[in-house]
Amino acid sequence: MDMRRLDRTVDTEEALSYLREATVGYLALAENNTAYAIPLHFVWCEQSIYIHCAPEGRKITLLRQNPHCSFVVSFLDGIKGGASACEYGAYYRSAMVDGVARFVVDAEEKLMALTALTEKHAQVPFSPVTAAGMAKTTVVAIDIVRISGKARRS
Amino acid sequence: MDMRRLDRTVDTEEALSYLREATVGYLALAENNTAYAIPLHFVWCEQSIYIHCAPEGRKITLLRQNPHCSFVVSFLDGIKGGASACEYGAYYRSAMVDGVARFVVDAEEKLMALTALTEKHAQVPFSPVTAAGMAKTTVVAIDIVRISGKARRS
Repeated sequence: MDMRRLDRTVDTEEALSYLREATVGYLALAENNTAYAIPLHFVWCEQSIYIHCAPEGRKITLLRQNPHCSFVVSFLDGIKGGASACEYGAYYRSAMVDGVARFVVDAEEKLMALTALTEKHAQVPFSPVTAAGMAKTTVVAIDIVRISGKARRS
Repeated sequence: MDMRRLDRTVDTEEALSYLREATVGYLALAENNTAYAIPLHFVWCEQSIYIHCAPEGRKITLLRQNPHCSFVVSFLDGIKGGASACEYGAYYRSAMVDGVARFVVDAEEKLMALTALTEKHAQVPFSPVTAAGMAKTTVVAIDIVRISGKARRS
């Protein structure tokens, strides 16, 4: 289904820039035709969004059952005020990804993803990801099938 | 499915306080066993989360087809650093609601919800919601079936 407010669409490059900028994203999963969303740290690299987690848990179970998922980031840039309630609105930017989850088994890709994740969030230099750290961590790539973005700037 | 990290569970009152504090929440919807999440302004009042929107659009269509949804808020309170990549982590708080969407038709409830929404987000006094504003706005209550919360503080 297409976006109702086409005037607020942004191009793919702009939408990808939101993935680069955002610290936390929301992974949406479906189970028995109900949905739930989980806030996560992530890193975007080319065609994929990478997340990491423990080797078991609800999201792992659900992603194995159904790898189709979506991922969204948003920024609230301000509130548009007004004299009346109906004039209120929000300035925002958001990106929404339709993706397919893939459990990363290739050691090189896994190391790349974990290093990129830590680099994104670390404030100071850190020692490299170890083999033991790799072994106890599950890395999931959300391969991007489609990305769209919206923004209201004025 | 239950939470893996029970040590991070918070009680219902604490989880509800996250709904009170958060400015933006993420509504997760399912369609054909895929999910998507939408960032939204909202207000929590007792048994329901209220959102408002235009009378048409993708989320309205999906909610009419399938009112079962979830709603999540989260706060990233800080990054837990370390000497090695594996010591990194996040301090966070989050609340997750399983809910059922209900289109609000009662004028009194609709006015209460729109007023509460504006009061939550307005920085300055505003004139009341008008009848015209009411007519062109759809209000949806996400009636809370279950709420859970998680936090990592140390």
